[in-house]
Amino acid sequence: MYRIDCLQFANWSERIFREMRDGGVDAVHVTIVYHETFQETVAKFSQWNRWFVDYDELILRGETAADIDTARATNRTAIFFGFQNPSPIEADIDLVEIVHKLGARFMQLSYNNQSLLATGCYEDEDPGITRMGREVIREMNRVGLVVDMSHSADRSTIEAAEISDRPIAITHANPHVWHPALRNKRPEVIKAVVDNGGMMGFSLYPHHLAGKSDCTLESFCQMVADAAETYGVAHFGIGSDLCQDQPDSIVEYMRVGRWTKGIDYGEGSASAPGFPPQPTWFETNLHFTNIEQGLRDVGFDETEVGAIMGDNWYRFFAENFGPQTS
Amino acid sequence: MYRIDCLQFANWSERIFREMRDGGVDAVHVTIVYHETFQETVAKFSQWNRWFVDYDELILRGETAADIDTARATNRTAIFFGFQNPSPIEADIDLVEIVHKLGARFMQLSYNNQSLLATGCYEDEDPGITRMGREVIREMNRVGLVVDMSHSADRSTIEAAEISDRPIAITHANPHVWHPALRNKRPEVIKAVVDNGGMMGFSLYPHHLAGKSDCTLESFCQMVADAAETYGVAHFGIGSDLCQDQPDSIVEYMRVGRWTKGIDYGEGSASAPGFPPQPTWFETNLHFTNIEQGLRDVGFDETEVGAIMGDNWYRFFAENFGPQTS
Repeated sequence: MYRIDCLQFANWSERIFREMRDGGVDAVHVTIVYHETFQETVAKFSQWNRWFVDYDELILRGETAADIDTARATNRTAIFFGFQNPSPIEADIDLVEIVHKLGARFMQLSYNNQSLLATGCYEDEDPGITRMGREVIREMNRVGLVVDMSHSADRSTIEAAEISDRPIAITHANPHVWHPALRNKRPEVIKAVVDNGGMMGFSLYPHHLAGKSDCTLESFCQMVADAAETYGVAHFGIGSDLCQDQPDSIVEYMRVGRWTKGIDYGEGSASAPGFPPQPTWFETNLHFTNIEQGLRDVGFDETEVGAIMGDNWYRFFAENFGPQTS
Repeated sequence: MYRIDCLQFANWSERIFREMRDGGVDAVHVTIVYHETFQETVAKFSQWNRWFVDYDELILRGETAADIDTARATNRTAIFFGFQNPSPIEADIDLVEIVHKLGARFMQLSYNNQSLLATGCYEDEDPGITRMGREVIREMNRVGLVVDMSHSADRSTIEAAEISDRPIAITHANPHVWHPALRNKRPEVIKAVVDNGGMMGFSLYPHHLAGKSDCTLESFCQMVADAAETYGVAHFGIGSDLCQDQPDSIVEYMRVGRWTKGIDYGEGSASAPGFPPQPTWFETNLHFTNIEQGLRDVGFDETEVGAIMGDNWYRFFAENFGPQTS
């Protein structure tokens, strides 16, 4: 049984890498970019290149699913890169292949706002995938850079699933029916993604949880059971959105970037602008065992628990990170 | 009577600068960017910095309307900078003030495609001004960088006129009612711009002309008369879109940039992909006298001819290139 988390954005440190090991986490998809330009993104890759040397007893670079097996065999965690915004490719479709070569495996077509490719979930209007967006999806399909629509608006997400020749992902979100947050996904959106063979990772970020920081493990796991029942267990995994050790200035940067001189609270509010506290049962990489047990407690068998905790993502990584074959 | 052309994109050379002088052109708004990043844009400013030294007997840097008077007094042409795409500010609102400081005076909120700010006229859908677009318009108003919607879609243009606290411009286009090209402007779009105190420059680019390369001077000038009659002569000038001495590879770059690996013919077609030939009565900066005479011939008096040939743009430049005062 693999244990894979398909979204984290920590303030990385040796302690967190050690927790990944102590928590038995085989692979993590880490966000390396929210709003950065291409050159700023290169600096992020470079930082990780240094960490892979400095902490080579704990982590290794993940480029294919096989790297996850190498990680298990050597008691390490494979780190896969992703972007929450297409800003690294700027207005240049040729940069899709360049960032894939540098290690990017997921790219959101939009963050909260309109991008050159698609619409974000905080815009009033969602015109769907743009002219450039159609071209970029085709290019992402070709090289094996997965379309991630976690922060995108509904129509854009549905169109992306339809346009993409390969499965797409919502790496970190929950069903809107369970908790009607702007970032959670309505049934027609989840259906479009899974009908295309795609996957969704369940988020543990409090704004995405029913009851927020007070959400219970039971409620979370029952939501997983309901989603698996409705759409099929093969389409789900974990994308915890864990943002460990980050100062609140980081969540402000995530929301505001450099697109406004004002302030935007995103999922927060003026009275609660910072990172919300995690539920006590999921605060670090040590806590995946809680979710595993919770899934058993709501009736999943061992194969299903394994599928959700990592086996589904392993299969998805194996099928979608290489060049298009047909 | 001023003679001002509010859009040219030539393959600049001493010969063309001399033709500006021989044609009595006091000021030209030149496009320096179609799709360039910020750093590529800086290189364009730098190139002009060199030309202002190398050809200082012919041209000078235009930053305010007063520079046009300096140009006239010293028998030179004032060059004002503009962008046909907001790509130079990337995703960074602070770059608005930076590019203004470097000399930019017009910036289109979109070229043919969706941008981070607004929609281009070749997209199927036009959701209007984006969240970032609203912020950037406010910042452009503050510093005195004029919103240009020449290539934008209708709803985006109307919303930009409404959102902007200062007049906006369509620097180069014609009324759709005269020639129903995608790039020409429908009545409700022109009305929104002029109601906001804005201006439109009449284009001499053949794809924007009734009869294209065969358009007659009479037809063009009658169109000007009709527009002046409908909306008021104070709202119009010339924005010739003259692209002298450019190879056809340039029009391909203008259309395709780096947003697709395929080809897009824009206003052209597979059988006629290049720059179309200019009408014989407007091929160079020597030919503004033809338009001037043509305007007299359709009944404009001298004051009106002066207004259209440059006095209106002079007033617009004087009012809109400095910091917002209220």
